[in-house]
Parts: sequence; C-alpha cells; structure tokens
Amino acid sequence: MLKDKLLNEKVLRDPIHNFIHIQDRVILDLINTSEFQRLRRIQQLGITSAVFHGAEHSRFGHSVGAYEIARRITEHFEQYYLSQAPGDGLWQKDERLVTLAAALLHDIGHGAFSHTFEHLFGTDHEAITREIIMGDTEIHTVLASVAPDFPNKVASVIAKTYDNPQVVQLISSQLDVDRMDYLLRDAYFTGTKYGEFDIDRILRTMKPTKNGIAFDIAGMHAVEDYVVSRYQMYLQVYFHPVSRGMEVLLEHLLQRARELYRASGTHEKDFVGPLLTPLFSDAPLSIYDYLQIDDHVFMTYIAMWRHHPDPILSDLSQRFLDRRPLKSIIINDETAPLLEDLDQLVGIAGYNANYYTARNDAFDLPYDDYKPNVAKPRTQIDFVLDDGSHRELSELSPLVAAIKGQVSFDKRFYFPKEMLSIEPDELFADTFKTFRSYIHNNSLTTPNPES
Amino acid sequence: MLKDKLLNEKVLRDPIHNFIHIQDRVILDLINTSEFQRLRRIQQLGITSAVFHGAEHSRFGHSVGAYEIARRITEHFEQYYLSQAPGDGLWQKDERLVTLAAALLHDIGHGAFSHTFEHLFGTDHEAITREIIMGDTEIHTVLASVAPDFPNKVASVIAKTYDNPQVVQLISSQLDVDRMDYLLRDAYFTGTKYGEFDIDRILRTMKPTKNGIAFDIAGMHAVEDYVVSRYQMYLQVYFHPVSRGMEVLLEHLLQRARELYRASGTHEKDFVGPLLTPLFSDAPLSIYDYLQIDDHVFMTYIAMWRHHPDPILSDLSQRFLDRRPLKSIIINDETAPLLEDLDQLVGIAGYNANYYTARNDAFDLPYDDYKPNVAKPRTQIDFVLDDGSHRELSELSPLVAAIKGQVSFDKRFYFPKEMLSIEPDELFADTFKTFRSYIHNNSLTTPNPES
Amino acid sequence: MLKDKLLNEKVLRDPIHNFIHIQDRVILDLINTSEFQRLRRIQQLGITSAVFHGAEHSRFGHSVGAYEIARRITEHFEQYYLSQAPGDGLWQKDERLVTLAAALLHDIGHGAFSHTFEHLFGTDHEAITREIIMGDTEIHTVLASVAPDFPNKVASVIAKTYDNPQVVQLISSQLDVDRMDYLLRDAYFTGTKYGEFDIDRILRTMKPTKNGIAFDIAGMHAVEDYVVSRYQMYLQVYFHPVSRGMEVLLEHLLQRARELYRASGTHEKDFVGPLLTPLFSDAPLSIYDYLQIDDHVFMTYIAMWRHHPDPILSDLSQRFLDRRPLKSIIINDETAPLLEDLDQLVGIAGYNANYYTARNDAFDLPYDDYKPNVAKPRTQIDFVLDDGSHRELSELSPLVAAIKGQVSFDKRFYFPKEMLSIEPDELFADTFKTFRSYIHNNSLTTPNPES
Amino acid sequence: MLKDKLLNEKVLRDPIHNFIHIQDRVILDLINTSEFQRLRRIQQLGITSAVFHGAEHSRFGHSVGAYEIARRITEHFEQYYLSQAPGDGLWQKDERLVTLAAALLHDIGHGAFSHTFEHLFGTDHEAITREIIMGDTEIHTVLASVAPDFPNKVASVIAKTYDNPQVVQLISSQLDVDRMDYLLRDAYFTGTKYGEFDIDRILRTMKPTKNGIAFDIAGMHAVEDYVVSRYQMYLQVYFHPVSRGMEVLLEHLLQRARELYRASGTHEKDFVGPLLTPLFSDAPLSIYDYLQIDDHVFMTYIAMWRHHPDPILSDLSQRFLDRRPLKSIIINDETAPLLEDLDQLVGIAGYNANYYTARNDAFDLPYDDYKPNVAKPRTQIDFVLDDGSHRELSELSPLVAAIKGQVSFDKRFYFPKEMLSIEPDELFADTFKTFRSYIHNNSLTTPNPES
Repeated sequence: MLKDKLLNEKVLRDPIHNFIHIQDRVILDLINTSEFQRLRRIQQLGITSAVFHGAEHSRFGHSVGAYEIARRITEHFEQYYLSQAPGDGLWQKDERLVTLAAALLHDIGHGAFSHTFEHLFGTDHEAITREIIMGDTEIHTVLASVAPDFPNKVASVIAKTYDNPQVVQLISSQLDVDRMDYLLRDAYFTGTKYGEFDIDRILRTMKPTKNGIAFDIAGMHAVEDYVVSRYQMYLQVYFHPVSRGMEVLLEHLLQRARELYRASGTHEKDFVGPLLTPLFSDAPLSIYDYLQIDDHVFMTYIAMWRHHPDPILSDLSQRFLDRRPLKSIIINDETAPLLEDLDQLVGIAGYNANYYTARNDAFDLPYDDYKPNVAKPRTQIDFVLDDGSHRELSELSPLVAAIKGQVSFDKRFYFPKEMLSIEPDELFADTFKTFRSYIHNNSLTTPNPES
Repeated sequence: MLKDKLLNEKVLRDPIHNFIHIQDRVILDLINTSEFQRLRRIQQLGITSAVFHGAEHSRFGHSVGAYEIARRITEHFEQYYLSQAPGDGLWQKDERLVTLAAALLHDIGHGAFSHTFEHLFGTDHEAITREIIMGDTEIHTVLASVAPDFPNKVASVIAKTYDNPQVVQLISSQLDVDRMDYLLRDAYFTGTKYGEFDIDRILRTMKPTKNGIAFDIAGMHAVEDYVVSRYQMYLQVYFHPVSRGMEVLLEHLLQRARELYRASGTHEKDFVGPLLTPLFSDAPLSIYDYLQIDDHVFMTYIAMWRHHPDPILSDLSQRFLDRRPLKSIIINDETAPLLEDLDQLVGIAGYNANYYTARNDAFDLPYDDYKPNVAKPRTQIDFVLDDGSHRELSELSPLVAAIKGQVSFDKRFYFPKEMLSIEPDELFADTFKTFRSYIHNNSLTTPNPES
Repeated sequence: MLKDKLLNEKVLRDPIHNFIHIQDRVILDLINTSEFQRLRRIQQLGITSAVFHGAEHSRFGHSVGAYEIARRITEHFEQYYLSQAPGDGLWQKDERLVTLAAALLHDIGHGAFSHTFEHLFGTDHEAITREIIMGDTEIHTVLASVAPDFPNKVASVIAKTYDNPQVVQLISSQLDVDRMDYLLRDAYFTGTKYGEFDIDRILRTMKPTKNGIAFDIAGMHAVEDYVVSRYQMYLQVYFHPVSRGMEVLLEHLLQRARELYRASGTHEKDFVGPLLTPLFSDAPLSIYDYLQIDDHVFMTYIAMWRHHPDPILSDLSQRFLDRRPLKSIIINDETAPLLEDLDQLVGIAGYNANYYTARNDAFDLPYDDYKPNVAKPRTQIDFVLDDGSHRELSELSPLVAAIKGQVSFDKRFYFPKEMLSIEPDELFADTFKTFRSYIHNNSLTTPNPES
Repeated sequence: MLKDKLLNEKVLRDPIHNFIHIQDRVILDLINTSEFQRLRRIQQLGITSAVFHGAEHSRFGHSVGAYEIARRITEHFEQYYLSQAPGDGLWQKDERLVTLAAALLHDIGHGAFSHTFEHLFGTDHEAITREIIMGDTEIHTVLASVAPDFPNKVASVIAKTYDNPQVVQLISSQLDVDRMDYLLRDAYFTGTKYGEFDIDRILRTMKPTKNGIAFDIAGMHAVEDYVVSRYQMYLQVYFHPVSRGMEVLLEHLLQRARELYRASGTHEKDFVGPLLTPLFSDAPLSIYDYLQIDDHVFMTYIAMWRHHPDPILSDLSQRFLDRRPLKSIIINDETAPLLEDLDQLVGIAGYNANYYTARNDAFDLPYDDYKPNVAKPRTQIDFVLDDGSHRELSELSPLVAAIKGQVSFDKRFYFPKEMLSIEPDELFADTFKTFRSYIHNNSLTTPNPES
C-alpha cells in the first residue's frame, strides 16, 4: 500500500526551488522507475544548448520542479482553502496525490529532440504519455499500487478529461505548474533574465474556485509579469534563429538517413543500429522501443554517420556535431515567392536545396482569453474581486491586452553560410553576389538591379 | 594571419560571467574547431548529475569560462601593471594571446567520465592535451596560423614548462582561472552555495610579480573565502558518496565489458561497436579514435548492454541507467581488515564481490604552502605588503592555517543496497542481519556479539 | 590641477554594481564634499520605506551608482567608438569627465521627501542643483579646479542645454544612467523583482550617433524589458497606495505646522526650531539654509510635534511616526463628484476634512516617441539597422507600442481608517455605515439605497 | 482575546525572506505598536553605512526577519516533531506564540548607535527590553491581552531564564534566529558575500531535543559554513577600521557635548534640546524618554552643533557629518607603550589628544563549546547521530576546530588623518615626519633612527 507518507521526507537539491521535497512513498517510487530516470537522458531544450551553452539541463529536473510547485500549491490549498462541504468550490484533500503524480509525469512521454522527432516520425508525446501510464511499465505498477483506478485518473488529468477542473488547470492551463517551472528553469540555465517572475506571489494569490483556479487581485502584477516573461522567452530563447538553424540540420540529416535506409538492401541497413531500427522501419513503434531512444542514441549514430559514404548524410552530420548551423534571413508573405530564386542559386552553387535550404516558421500565441467558438479554447486567467466577481487578466493589464490573441512569429529562410562568402576569387563569386543582392537588413528583399 | 582583433567582439551568453567576450579571431576560430565543440558532449562533473540533477553542464561552458576569467585578468594587468622595462616583473602585453589560448584549451584532452576512464584505460589527459595541440588537428592549424612556435608555447603553458611564471600560474596554481571558474560554475549548476566567493575582489587585487602572481593584502579575506569554498565543495559535492556509488558501478561494468571482449571470439566482439573498439583492443589508442568517444557513446553502449547475455554486465548496466547506486559505509584503517568478512557475506548472498563491492577513497589536499623538498611542490598564495615584502596566506588566515597541508579524505566501502534488506522472510535474512551488525552510525565497526 | 587619474583606483562596495570604481581625483574630491555627503541623509524613496521596509537606501548610493554606469559607458565608448575626425558622430574622449561629474551630481539638489517638499514649499530641485554647482560651495570649488568653465559645463549637461546631445542623453533621456540605476537599486532594496533588466546587454549595445545615443538592434529585447520593468515599478512600487497614504499625512502635518507658525506670535514660533525656520518664514530660502535640512531634521521635529498643543498637528505627527497611514479607495472622473459627500461624512465623524482627507492622483508616462509639437518632447529610443537606418522602439516592440504615449495613473481618495470601523456600538455607527455604502470593490461608487 | 489566527495572513515584502508571513493577530498588533515602529528609526549597523553605503537598513527589518525565521522553525517542528507525551523532548505546540513574540521583540530595547550609546551613557539594552515588555507600553498591553503572564514569559525567554531550553536556544544561542537573520541581512545590504549560508538546509536539519536544539548530521556542512560566514563577517564588516574611525568621532563628540552641558549655566544648556536633555542630565533615564531618542535626534543635534562656539565640538561634528573619520594603525601589546609618544606628537601638532586620538579594540569569540567553569558558558552546537548520540561541531569540522575558543581581535590606534600630511612646507612638517616614522606596513612600530 503506497499511499504512505515517508517517515522522513527526502530532498533533491535543485537550483530553482533549492530543494524538491518528497514526502510520499509513491512519489519516491515513481522517480525511481526506469521510465522516469530516462528523462535524465533527454535535454529539456534540445539543441538550444548550441546557442545558450548553459542550457544543457534535462527533462528530469523540470519534471521534479513541476512536481515541487504542485506540492507547494496543494499544501497552501490544504492550509487555507480546504473544502468544508461538497460543492463549495474549495480544495478537496484527496486530490493531492493525483495532482502530484500528474505534475511529475506530465512530460514522461517526451522523446529526444521532441519537436524534430514528432514532426519527422509522426509520434505524439501525449498519446505516448498515456501509454506509459496505462501500459506494462514500472510507472503503471507504482501508480496501480495506490488504487486500481489511480493510473487512469492520472492519465485523465494529463489528457484534461479529469472531472475536477482545479486539478486539470494546475497541470495544464495558461498558468500551470509546467509553464511556471520551465520559464524559471530555462531562464536560469540559459543565463537570461527574461524568464524570471515572482512565483512566490503567484502561488500565494492562487485560489481554487468552482470552475477551476483563479487569483486574488493582489497578484495581478505578478501574473502580468509572468505573461510578459513568457512572451519574451519565446522571442529571445525559444525562437532563437541559430537554434533553428541547428534543428533544420538535424531534421534534414535524419530525413536523409531514413531515405537511405529505405533505399538500402537488407544487409546495408545496419548503419542505423539496433536502437534506431524500430524508428526507421515501417512497423509501428512500440512503447518498449520508444523508451530505448534518448539523446545519447541519436548523438552516437550521428557521430557514426560522419563516416557514411553518402556525402549529404556525412556532411550534414559533421556540420551538426561541429555546430555549423545553416544561416537565415527574415521573410514575410510578400517576399516568400522570391525563395524559389534563392533555392535555384543555392543549387547552382552546388548544394542540394532539399537538404541545404529550408523555410522555418516559429509561432506562439502567448495568451488568450476564453473563446468558446475556437477549436481549442483557452482557459483564461481570472482574478477575484472583493465582491466575489471575476475579471479576466487583459481587462486589467494594458500590457497583456496588447499581446492577447496576437500570434508571435518569426519566419525565416535557411541556407548554407557559404552563400555569403565574399572572397572575390571564389568559383561561384557571381552566384554569391546575386544571392546577397536579395538580402537587406538581414531580411529577404527584391534585389535592386543597380546596387 | 590570425592575430587580428575582431571588428566587433562576439559574445556567448553565460550564466556565470553573464557574457563571454570574444575579441580575437584566433579565439573564435579555436572555439569553432571540431575538437573544441566536442567538449559540449562531455559533462563537467561526469556522473555527479545523478545526485545533483542540475549539474548536467558540459566542459564547453567551463572552458570558455576559464578563458573569460583569463581575459579579464590580462585586461586588468594591461591597464594597471604594464611592463615598462625588461625584468621589472610587470605584465608583458605579448603574453596575452598565449594566456587566453592556454586558458581556453586547458581541458581539451579530457574524455568522457575522465576519472573512471583514465583509471581503467590508462590514458593521461595531460599527454592527450599536448597531442591535440601539437598533432594533426584543427586546433593545431588555428594555433599555428598565429606563429609557427605558437602551438608549442600554448602546450608548454599547460604543461607548466613555459618560462614566464606569471602565465603558468594564471593557468595552473592553487588559485588559477581553472579553479575559479569550476568552483563558481559547479556551485551554480548543483544549486549549492558553498562554492561561491568574491571573484571580482580577487581579480582586482591580483598582480604580477617577478616570481609569478601575488595579491594585494586588501584581497586577503576574499582569497581565504575562496580556499574555504573549495574545501567545502570537495567535502560536499566532489566527494559525495552517492556519486561515487555510481562511479563504482560504471567502472565495474566497463571492466566486465572489457573482460568479456577479451575472452570473446572475433565474431562475438561486436557488442562493443566501432567507436569503442579501439579502446577495448590492445593496440594503443590514437588521438583520432580518442576524439570519437564522448558521453553519448558510452551511454549508448551501456544502454545496449542491458540486453547482453552476461548477467553481471546486463545487471550493472541496468543499475547504472536506472540510477541504482551501490550503498556505502565509512571505513578507516583500523576497521578496513573487516572488509574481508563483508565481501564474504556479499558472496553468500549471491553477489560476485569483484563487481558488487568496492573500496573507494576520496582525497584532496585543499591548500599547501611551498615545500621545496616534496615531489610536486605547490606554488603558495602570497600577499604583498606596503613595503613590498610578501606574506604567505596561512600566516594571515587562521582558517587556512587549519587546513594547510591537511589531506581531506573520505574512505568508504560499497556494496549492494539489498544487503540492508530487513524483510524477515528473506532467503538470506540471517546473512543480511550479520552484515548489518558490522554497521554503526553509518560506519564499519566490529560487530557486538550480543546486539 | 585635478584632472589627474588616481594612482590606484578606489572602490566603494555597492550591492548593485558590486564595486563603484573611482579613477579620477576630481570624482573622489566631489564625493568627499560636504554637499555630496549630505545625500546620505536623504532617503531615495522617501516614505516608501513605510511599505517596503528594505527600501531605506539613501540618494548617496544612487548617485554613485549612476556615476558608475556612466563610467562603464564612457569606457566602452572609448574602446569601441572613439571619434577619428570631427563630425563623425563618434565619442570624444574629452567628454568623459563632464559626463562622469554630471552623472554623479544629477541629484545633488534633491531635498528630504522631495515630492512633498517641492509641492509644499515651492522649491525646484533643478534650480537648486544649478545653484549648488555654480554657487559658493565645496562642489563648485572642486569643479572649478578642473577648468574655470567646467562647473558651467556640468550644470548645462544637467539642464539639458549642453551642446553635445550624446552627453545630455546619457544623463537625461528615457534610457539614461539615472533611470537605469534607480530601477535596479529600488528593485533590490524593496525586494521586488519587477525592476530587474539586463543592464549588461543594454550597455553593450548602446552606441553614440550624430544625434545622440542609439542602440544596436541586438539590444532590442533588453531595452523592451527595461521599459516594461519601469512601467511595472511605477504601478507596483512608486504608485503604492499605502505610501501615498503616508505622504498625505506628511503633507498635511507640515501644512498645519506652517499655518500654526504663521499664526503664532514671535515667541511662540520656536516649536519649529532653528533648522526649519528659514523654510517656514516668508523670506526666500538660501542655498546655505536649504542644505541644512535633511530627513533627520524633519523626523526630529515631527517627533517633537507629537507633544504640540494643537490636536491636529500632534495627532497627524503621531500617526506619521507610528505608521498609521490614511486609507484609500479608487476614484475616477465619473465618481469624483461623490467626494463631497464623503468629506461631509468624515466631518460628521469629527475629523477636519482639510487635514484628514485628500484626493491624490499618481501619474506617469512610461514611454513616448518624439513628438515635435508637444511642450516637452521626449527623445525617443532608436535602434540602428545594418544599413545604418534607424527604427524607433515602439515600431519593433508590440509591448512598448501598447504603452507608448499612454499615461499610467492611479486616482485615489484618502480618509481615516476609522471610517471603516464596523463595531455596532460605535457612536458614529450610522455615519460609518453610510460611508461604507459608497465603497464597492475598493472603489468609490454610487451607494445602492437598498444595500 | 488576541490568540486568534488572522483570517487572511498578511505579508511584508522582504528582500531576505521574500515575504514575512504574519498569521496571528497578536503579532500584527505588536508590529503596529509605537515602540516597535520606532525600530524603523534606528539603523541596524549604526555608522557602518559610512563604509558600506548600502547598509542603511533599520532594526525593523531585522526584527521581522528574526520573527520570520522563528515562524518557519515552529511550523517545521509542528509538522515533524510534535510532542506526543510529556518529557519526550519534542516540540510543544503551545510554545509557538511565545517563541514568535520573543523573536520579534528581542531587539526592542536597542537605541540609536547602540554600541556608543551604551558605552557612554551606561544604559543596558537588555534591561530596557525587559522594561519595555513589562512596563506601561503598548507592547505590554498587546502581550497581556494573550494572558496575564504572557509578557513575563516573553521577557524571560529573552533573558534566557525561561524553563524550556528549546525556546531559549532558538532566540539566544550560537545559532539562533537573531544571528541567522542579521548575517544574511547585513551581507545583503552591505553587498558582501561573506555572510551568505544555506539557511534552508540549516532549518531542515534543526530538531528539538531534551536539552534544547540539535541538528541532524546531514546539516553539518551548512552549519560549518554558517560559523565560518559569521567569522568572516566580523573580520570584514563589523571590525571595519573606517567605521570604527567614525565611531570614535561620535563617541568623542557626544562626550564633549556632555562635558559642555555639565559645565554650562542653566540658560546655556539649550544647545542640547528637549529630546536629548534627559540623557545628558544626571537623573536616571525613564523608558518614556529613552524611547524618544532615535538616530534622527542624534543626527539633528550633531548638525546643529556644527555651529556651536566650542571649537572641538563643532569640528568633531563637522567631521562626523562630512564623513571624515580618524585614521588608524594596527597596534599590539608590545607596541602599545609607544602610543604615549604618538599622543604627544598629536598634541604638538595642535590637536587635543583626549578628543582626537583613541585606542579602539574590536573583539569577538566566533564559536566555543560548552565550558561549565567559565562565567558565561556557551551552549554548544550539537549533532545527532543515527544511534541518538551527540557530537559537538568542532569534533566534526576542522575549520571550526581552528577557530573554536579563539578570540578574533583587531587593536588599533586612531588619530587625525592630517598627521600623515607630506607637504614639505607644512608648519609641522617635522612633527609629521616623526609621527610617520612610527608606522610601518600600516602598523605601529619602533621608529628606526636612520630611516
């Protein structure tokens, strides 16, 4: 019976929260599962560490950090907002463990270089999360020891189908334990300051309501600062054009490797190795095979592929390992048609445009209020006034009103840095010169015939 | 000609120094070499991240950090202590570039899990560093472009044979750019506070002298704090018993893999894979092969070995990946003879003591003054008084006097955690009980027959 | 001749910049003047420390902090942007000292509780600054030792009439050394996080231009963050309603004291004391007398006035010293006419509304672009693109666009906290109840007859 | 009845603890008393802010900070170590409020410039603390509303006569809430790093025992770091020779004022003013009068005394306000007899040695174990081992062993800076030269006749 509190709490030292406090046997056992330990082998920000070299932290730290925030919230709710009668909209003590487990496991389905991985191999980390929780795994065993339906409860919280909206919103909303932890954590490890906000004040002013979670009006500016911080982290860190230049390399080299694999005869397929083969073959990927793949496996095979006879695969692998990203310029809908010209010039210079150029658009909707008619309506951030009425965040904050419902984006075209070569005696000096004539102030532009 | 200053300095965002300022083309080119980028793939603290999950930072950040400290020092020396005449003991401007390059490259020879690696495979990262700088590498090419003898100068600084003691001491001494960076960096990423000290004050009070580097008396307490911080980081972080329990696992599994490799027929050797084979074979390891091996390669093969038919290799690999370290107790010279009994009990319980137990002693000499008659005399830390005379640190600081010349150590015996099982119906309940009778207050002790 | 560099730089330990570096004899001598040391006796944020108890820091620290930022900027400009030819729009070395002196002295004319002081006594700290620099003061003597016209140059920089717009903008613009220091400093001492921004990046991307100061496009997000931080500090700290409730007390008690002074016979005037008398009398205040008044003097007389026979003066003084601020509610132009009713109710409850109520409006225009036709056009924040063209901040930042030209404000009505008493047996229970009926959600509202 | 918990906790923003949480009405009411608010008007470190300009923080912040640490400890004890049976050595819930009140009020008896004040006027802040708690004060009224004997309980905790040693040691021991707060706070405001330590870990490992407070062995290094931090703060901040040069000025000017007061006729005594008169007269100082005196009062009268006809009082006052401290050199028992020579030389140069020179010795015993036979035996810091036995700190830490029982000291002689003048045409050039011949490496030394 695993519901037990630990006799002495255990702690993990953490640079963001100082200590992660583990008070329940089930939480300790979950952390000790093979599937959870695997998160140590997957970087939180993928290839972003090629730009921000401090950001080499793994999903393990983020997962226990999200758990710690959830633990603090449930402790606060128990102390101040404990339900006295059914339907009073307050916090129910028996939601604690499912909240903590869901916070801890919310990212358990993530794989190496998630973004690239999902895009290329068609996996879905949310479905995988459910499979890990409900399938034949150590995690399932630990969860089931609490109660037979406990795994399903945890999975439904993560899938947002759980019936208590307070728990769902703590785990997934526009201000949830996931986002709070990753903003603080990514700011700390990148060494940028944009992601910092006053989490203590936010947690103090958070309160359960009948429809989920709301905030005391005294926390308005801390919440506003959080939304602005998130917005700035997207533009400054998550959209960073150089990271995306590395991602393009990674995607193209994996794509090339898969094409080579498919085109190869049986006895030539072994450049892919046993751990990656299930991914490259046409059969569906089992959870067992999925969990074998981590950053190390990818990095090791890319290292081997530097010596592959295919010149495109070996060159892209070498560029990736030596951190020589593709360069980029800003494009927009008006200038996008000119990309055909650029692809052609890159081709003339000897690069296969399919692998050496790319259009890459980064998008984010930093905040929106509840819009019942859209496909995935957002849970808006609400504040409670003295008389109990609610006000939505953007009604109170001109800053948030300015970005509400506005998609941030950064659209770019990637190409080999060599295209900007300015050596006059280059074989392709004219091609390069023509190429450069399309670029002004780091943006794609119609070339001026005279200049 | 690479001595050029960059037109615009480039910066890397760094959590410790905020920015790493790159002002010289040669420094930029060194960072962009394949051999230097490889440092991104080697964790600074190896398996320590199994205990301090924030400490997943690589040697890349530390190397550019040590460079940045060197850059600040040379800038300060140029501004305040520029030599006016030969032999005046002040700073010579043309030592700048060799100092910066040596700071940047001082760790270039390190491999994955250095400590374990060197111990097991008999490599020497200092010799390898020299080979990388002097051999057929991108780094050598960049260095040689400054001047034909420049690679050799950089190598001799790192080897401490360079003739300017100021430069040597900046790179290797009891208060050098290496130690200053790693203490601050490891403190930041582990989230402990012990490693923090006032680097600004230390750098401000550092000055060149005829015999090397000394400090203004105004910096005494900052230097004392640095020595104490270093002492505390060793005891708290670098000696951590749980990390060492992981290191023992790693060493034993690699040793087992090598034994299996040697005992295998030719066609059974492929469990080791192409990247590790040069390491396991009897031929000397070339630099080329050495540079192919990083954390990812080790971790990937350990992941594969979980499925190896040898039960010891597969079990140790699984324990290592799932973070199930060996447990430990404190031993001393008096109790060490009792270890034979424990090894025997571990054997009775079914574990091969060669792989499942270990004695592991951690040592460090935190500070010493200059002792001309010892094998490797230390360069002591000196302060300059108003009248120009020198005083050694421990004469001024009772705290440093207390630890001067005293080796810190922590001696332990490692064994499977299962030996502490207390379930009464266990098959080996009596063996376990006997085993536990040797342990008191987490230390090895002569068992009391009655208890 | 005071232009000399100091042989050894002196440093002051500073929590914001770590060290303030003093490299010139004239700067050291200015700091050591009687007039500059007086800044230690004037709190930077006045009575704000009644709310944020950490914010007890004086104008001295802020003044040397603004100097330190100026010093870093001029050092950076000298290294990277030194003028090669007249009119090239780059930095001229001989502007260094006037810039540093102006940064150090920009607040020298401030008095105790500046805001209240100027409002009540009609002084103008900018005029006083000029008088201190140009008059018979130690500061003037030090400045004049550099060159006869040096005091005037420094004064004209502060008055914004100096002919080099680079120097003027460093000292006074929407992103100047004054604002950068006080935001960081006030954030640090209050313990709020809103005021933090990445000053290192801002200073790195700042550059001189023909028309003043601009920024490299790479600094855009750091500048945006600074503008947002400033906006949030105003709303969270500088507009804090409880501080303003203390300021109202202070203003009313000083006003009452002046009225009593004017109405008193000659031999009854001594409750004001020798240091304050010049302020209360009708004669113009001399610089000599002005410089005698600091926080201590005001606080000491307020302490004495607790025992003054006038019940209003003694009560307001006691409330001020015991930190019992007036309470407040939010008002707007629509509800403002109701304030007459409230004043009447306060009168019925026995408080003289002239001294016990107040309307207090806090305003700030966080950022604006250059508008040639307004009374005091602002110098806008510009960024330089690759081709040398400029872009104004709000064109690049949606966040700044949202607050550009928009005045932030917070309008409030202050009254004795006792008006909210809810004891049913109070003498004025009905009056209090009527008063409360005007308040809803902390705002003034038309009372609902039924409620 | 004031034992009530507040319906909603109130918070004060604090730079050290982020928030001070106020959960009990009695604590809120104590903070709102006139006597407690007075702590805002007394600087924590007195004149130390003349050296560390950030350290202008008052005793108010420290007092609520000590309270906050006590609150966290009692919360932790209630959660983990609640007494189950009398005499079990665990924490008793009903000690909470007395602990919190004692923590909050432990410094309530401090006056302005405490050190100087007590020395000169013979007051005893501990006796005054008791009087404030037991006398006719607002604080007494609030405390008595809890229970008639509650004021006495609080006073006895502060006096260390309370019968529960756990409560006494939390408030006064070598590792108490007072010291923990002031080290962190003084480090923060001075901007030094020496005072930082890991308070979270210390609080986590603290536990109640039968004889008081002990620590889990896991906290050993954090406690060691705290002791070392405290030692370094004394040497670096609290012993700072320049602060002491200001303190000597202050002491001498107050002493001179008192002598003038005593020598004056009745109608000449008014230079002292009503608030200071009770202090200067011969009658015993009442609590009422004591509480009227704060930093502001002293500073205001010192400002007035700059214009006093007595040249010594006016000169010392001017030096003090303009921050022109006496200079100092290091002395020891051997060189002390030479001070007579120096006093004589200072006299020849025209300074009254009684007021312009001083011997000033700073002392501290950083840590000691329990010594039953000394006058004031210290409560040693103990750790609990697995088997329940105790070990004293210095047995475990070589660093602490090095400073245990060792008094840190810094003995100095103070004199006018003008004595170091080196202008050759000075009237007293020879006297100055002779004076300087006694100084070598900033220390007093027997002059060498030839040099």
